[in-house]
Amino acid sequence: MRLLLINPNTSPGITERVLAVAREVASPGVELAAVTGRFGGRYIANRATYAIAAHAALDALSRYRGRYDAVVLACFGDPGLLALKEVCSKPVVGMAEASLAAAILLGRRVALVTGGEAWVPMLEEFVAAQGLSERLAAVVAVKPTGADIARDPARSLAILAEATSDAVQRHRADVVVLGGAGLAGLAAPLSARITVPVIDSVACAVRMAEATASLVPDKARRPRRDGAEPIGTIGLSASLRDLLRRY
Amino acid sequence: MRLLLINPNTSPGITERVLAVAREVASPGVELAAVTGRFGGRYIANRATYAIAAHAALDALSRYRGRYDAVVLACFGDPGLLALKEVCSKPVVGMAEASLAAAILLGRRVALVTGGEAWVPMLEEFVAAQGLSERLAAVVAVKPTGADIARDPARSLAILAEATSDAVQRHRADVVVLGGAGLAGLAAPLSARITVPVIDSVACAVRMAEATASLVPDKARRPRRDGAEPIGTIGLSASLRDLLRRY
Amino acid sequence: MRLLLINPNTSPGITERVLAVAREVASPGVELAAVTGRFGGRYIANRATYAIAAHAALDALSRYRGRYDAVVLACFGDPGLLALKEVCSKPVVGMAEASLAAAILLGRRVALVTGGEAWVPMLEEFVAAQGLSERLAAVVAVKPTGADIARDPARSLAILAEATSDAVQRHRADVVVLGGAGLAGLAAPLSARITVPVIDSVACAVRMAEATASLVPDKARRPRRDGAEPIGTIGLSASLRDLLRRY
Amino acid sequence: MRLLLINPNTSPGITERVLAVAREVASPGVELAAVTGRFGGRYIANRATYAIAAHAALDALSRYRGRYDAVVLACFGDPGLLALKEVCSKPVVGMAEASLAAAILLGRRVALVTGGEAWVPMLEEFVAAQGLSERLAAVVAVKPTGADIARDPARSLAILAEATSDAVQRHRADVVVLGGAGLAGLAAPLSARITVPVIDSVACAVRMAEATASLVPDKARRPRRDGAEPIGTIGLSASLRDLLRRY
Amino acid sequence: MRLLLINPNTSPGITERVLAVAREVASPGVELAAVTGRFGGRYIANRATYAIAAHAALDALSRYRGRYDAVVLACFGDPGLLALKEVCSKPVVGMAEASLAAAILLGRRVALVTGGEAWVPMLEEFVAAQGLSERLAAVVAVKPTGADIARDPARSLAILAEATSDAVQRHRADVVVLGGAGLAGLAAPLSARITVPVIDSVACAVRMAEATASLVPDKARRPRRDGAEPIGTIGLSASLRDLLRRY
Amino acid sequence: MRLLLINPNTSPGITERVLAVAREVASPGVELAAVTGRFGGRYIANRATYAIAAHAALDALSRYRGRYDAVVLACFGDPGLLALKEVCSKPVVGMAEASLAAAILLGRRVALVTGGEAWVPMLEEFVAAQGLSERLAAVVAVKPTGADIARDPARSLAILAEATSDAVQRHRADVVVLGGAGLAGLAAPLSARITVPVIDSVACAVRMAEATASLVPDKARRPRRDGAEPIGTIGLSASLRDLLRRY
Repeated sequence: MRLLLINPNTSPGITERVLAVAREVASPGVELAAVTGRFGGRYIANRATYAIAAHAALDALSRYRGRYDAVVLACFGDPGLLALKEVCSKPVVGMAEASLAAAILLGRRVALVTGGEAWVPMLEEFVAAQGLSERLAAVVAVKPTGADIARDPARSLAILAEATSDAVQRHRADVVVLGGAGLAGLAAPLSARITVPVIDSVACAVRMAEATASLVPDKARRPRRDGAEPIGTIGLSASLRDLLRRY
Repeated sequence: MRLLLINPNTSPGITERVLAVAREVASPGVELAAVTGRFGGRYIANRATYAIAAHAALDALSRYRGRYDAVVLACFGDPGLLALKEVCSKPVVGMAEASLAAAILLGRRVALVTGGEAWVPMLEEFVAAQGLSERLAAVVAVKPTGADIARDPARSLAILAEATSDAVQRHRADVVVLGGAGLAGLAAPLSARITVPVIDSVACAVRMAEATASLVPDKARRPRRDGAEPIGTIGLSASLRDLLRRY
Repeated sequence: MRLLLINPNTSPGITERVLAVAREVASPGVELAAVTGRFGGRYIANRATYAIAAHAALDALSRYRGRYDAVVLACFGDPGLLALKEVCSKPVVGMAEASLAAAILLGRRVALVTGGEAWVPMLEEFVAAQGLSERLAAVVAVKPTGADIARDPARSLAILAEATSDAVQRHRADVVVLGGAGLAGLAAPLSARITVPVIDSVACAVRMAEATASLVPDKARRPRRDGAEPIGTIGLSASLRDLLRRY
Repeated sequence: MRLLLINPNTSPGITERVLAVAREVASPGVELAAVTGRFGGRYIANRATYAIAAHAALDALSRYRGRYDAVVLACFGDPGLLALKEVCSKPVVGMAEASLAAAILLGRRVALVTGGEAWVPMLEEFVAAQGLSERLAAVVAVKPTGADIARDPARSLAILAEATSDAVQRHRADVVVLGGAGLAGLAAPLSARITVPVIDSVACAVRMAEATASLVPDKARRPRRDGAEPIGTIGLSASLRDLLRRY
Repeated sequence: MRLLLINPNTSPGITERVLAVAREVASPGVELAAVTGRFGGRYIANRATYAIAAHAALDALSRYRGRYDAVVLACFGDPGLLALKEVCSKPVVGMAEASLAAAILLGRRVALVTGGEAWVPMLEEFVAAQGLSERLAAVVAVKPTGADIARDPARSLAILAEATSDAVQRHRADVVVLGGAGLAGLAAPLSARITVPVIDSVACAVRMAEATASLVPDKARRPRRDGAEPIGTIGLSASLRDLLRRY
Repeated sequence: MRLLLINPNTSPGITERVLAVAREVASPGVELAAVTGRFGGRYIANRATYAIAAHAALDALSRYRGRYDAVVLACFGDPGLLALKEVCSKPVVGMAEASLAAAILLGRRVALVTGGEAWVPMLEEFVAAQGLSERLAAVVAVKPTGADIARDPARSLAILAEATSDAVQRHRADVVVLGGAGLAGLAAPLSARITVPVIDSVACAVRMAEATASLVPDKARRPRRDGAEPIGTIGLSASLRDLLRRY
């Protein structure tokens, strides 16, 4: 099985990090490839860079030349998720939606813990748009961004431990998602400090991509737009123009 | 008062049409300008062109050099709405959200009637994301797209009359929104055939933009990101890069 | 355009105040008239006076002899709103519903700030009945009633500033409505102290009445009860009896 | 135990009918008194007469000189329900809310069947305002009003049987409420034709009033407005003026 | 009228207590019988004993040889409620659902106060499953279990007073349910300390069972499974096996 | 990795079938064991057998002597799900919840297609209790039960094809779950007839059990009841008694 990771921001370093984490957690025999956004924010820190990232994710998908059995949209918050699902004949799972799918199997009240306070309303709205608000205990964001945390995970541990503890004690979460590649690898140490499961969003995304790829047969899951007139575009990369014309 | 219309698709003809309709309905003394997306779909017909249009709308905003008191995002479905609101210090209203705001004052059960069947789930999800599903009677789409209808409005009248009638009879709507620039001008003839108010999305957007601009004082509505580190980007137009750096 | 303001309580002084505020904010060319309830509470302070005010609002509408293009129900909480809409062939907008319609265009999480603690559950239920609870951050009431605040606005400013600040900080509102004629004129000074838009309910109501009147064509928006047997009544004012018989 | 029935419309004949039905179903030892609205619609057929009936119900309560242990608001739709609860130191139950309370004990999916098509949206909104929409299978109204049905129950049986059958077959109701005094006495014959329980709204209201009166101790259930300044009113009956001043 | 009380846990002492309380509150002429679970937890303190209690309640029902007009499932939380309703041709009411039905007639915001902290999520989910979350102000559990409280009610009064006060002050409840047989008899003393009605779950269950038995005619409320093939079982008590075969 | 399958009904033949299907879909290296309920319905066909199955599932878990890394509750509808999760220190996933978790990654509007009409309300309520109703397009049940279908899958194909087609055409589902072991193996042939993904509940459960077992670290996910007094029970199997005492 081959998984394609799409990092919709423009930092190859983050792509490398996600790829490295994904390699650690992927099942034996799963091959991984990754592609990085060509335009947009270095990281996604607000709604504008989020919106641009959706376009960048589509563009990245169109540029990838290898084969794959499923796609992981490797940004916790899943910019462009529905658009990628639309044009892709293989399963696409976002890091946030995959984490929610795993979390609701492990607890009733899910907390999302992530870096960067701008993400709080964006993730609350994402969960609402997924129709999963009833299962959400809280979105708890620490001030350092995911990028900050990735640079010095050990130093962020204390503040994240406080956030996860807050999620459990005050918001009565019984499962905690650590959202974002920057927090990858911290589930184990944080888990030791609280009594509820702590899950990692990269691991969730990889596992759920594997699972959906195995569940859905070879054929495209959605009807291609065979009958429909191709959608004309301008100003896009050649690969994205072609993808939109023929998907 | 100056209103800026942003057409997030790439068809200048549609921009012209929206601008013409807006001129007819704008209050005396309101000046209008319009700007068209530079990349993306000729029209928005699926989730992918919708996602790209959000980026194009941001880019269009950044390119506009004139002054304005409010922005109308002139695509029914409002791609990029929250991102534009975030970076813009003036009120931004989307055609769909403005239509909903007007419609809930005119009826309890709102029907959205538009062209292009792909819009049905997209608009249902938009209304849900707005937290307004309780007020939605139905989204009814006719097969011809907005562009098709614009090309030959008279011919589309019968099919639209059937759709509005269906909205009222079957879905018990007590107010109908005609969504999209392509349907502009048809509220009057359709209104004559049914007993509930029929409102036009372009007119709603213009009126609501005028209203919010008059309600919100001169100062920026949201705190600028003064303290925050500028967000680095790559691969964007110079104007959008600058907008994201300094908003 | 002519707007009729109906004050459903029985204090002509409040009617005067609303009318004065409305004149300041109305668009050029808009003429205003006002009518006051003939029976019921001096102000509306509980559910009983609220219920009576609905009747008084209908009675007031029936007594008005001039022409109008739209009606503003000028009590924040909108007693009798649906009944007025039912019998009136012109758009009717309530101060609370109009404020909500404007607020959802300016923010995601709306706070209603008003005077008089009895209004908290009444407004929460009003918002729920409007199907807008998802957009409500909080109803925050200060102890002084609207009438108290109107008597000495300067003195109330501190307590209202605390309430609006509470709405933003604790309830994470990103738009604040100042509800009630008593708070009219305070949006500007309060706005200066916080970073989110503060809007005035009288101004919202006037603007939304203007907008809906412009959007809805001349003809009655709802079918008259032509076929239906007239509803017999007793004990009502002659004008209300007639209105119910012939609407 | 003494129950006071308030008929908020102005037809003494309907009051008599409700009283007669209530006497049949009341527990041994329960005494009944009834009072009729002094102003408003002969029957309640739209939102305007509904709004006026709330005032009339308050007025009727204030006029009653006897003692009572609980109040039944004897109009299916419960105009003025919350206002009566507010000013009354004894339990007040409405016919519709009492029927819902009984029905949710007897089935999962409740259908309300009543006379007069104007009631459909009014009852849907009532159920929503009660927070009970999840339990509502449907509101099914037959064309004849409750008054029409009361005049000739036998003739209405066929059309009501069709409505209840529709509620069960199409809307999958597993309990049916016959709403309104006009339908009293028809539960038995209709019950024989379908396989789910059919309950009568008058009987439900009497039973639930008895139950709540027995559950709530002698003391007033709510704090009186001791500290609060009396609410001044004008133009109300002397008894209502006094009630609002001292409750 | 004869009511059958089913205590689904295995402590005959609790059965006796419920029966004694029920005798005090039952209407004149109501006969009471009780039956105790034969297997499962001494008391219900977690989801596992709750699940087993549902089976035990079915078994208890099948073993009862007398006649009855309605069944009270006498455990606050109602294990097995829908299964009992399914197989029983008489009304079955659970203590929690009956308390909710009474409470929503007495207030808008219901608090459930009970003993044993494990019940908090279980009752929250129960209320949600009933579709009544909109009416729930809070579930407040004190640390001592119902059994603890029953052993020394006087000593628990202070902690329960704090819990009910918390429900009113912090959660803005306007009606409080004391849930569980262990708290029976405490409504009166607790009621004296707060300004909202306090109701007892045993009394509610008895009253609501009486009410529903009087409302539903003699005939079985649901169609028997006449046509359906009998469900084969193994390993159940003979009486339960027979009940499942022939209901 | 070792998975334990619990069949909570009492038909070893169904256990065998589930085990066989699970073996086909399990990842390489996954070992499977299965255990069957010792008491209750031959199959689960109503709420009563469902309630008993929860007890039987707990009993089955307690009897299993081998080691396992995760548990699959192998009945679509998941009787006893929360109780098993409570007492088990390893992840437990139910067939229905696992299918929902997979389905929401593959589509927006999920249809559950299963055998046996009694399951329709039971599954609707299950989905509601999961907080996932917003994602449910429909529960569509064919008349033959899962057991009937298992006996002659080929013959059931036509009726199931109609049901899945109905789910897609009428209910606008964009992903279909085939629920129940009896329908295992039919996803492929049914998938060929419609344009949306069709997934098998047994395969989903196995995959999701594998995924959660890999995501959650070795330690128990929930705090044991160390401090709490053991819960006394009577009348249970020795193994279940012990499990409840020490978990």
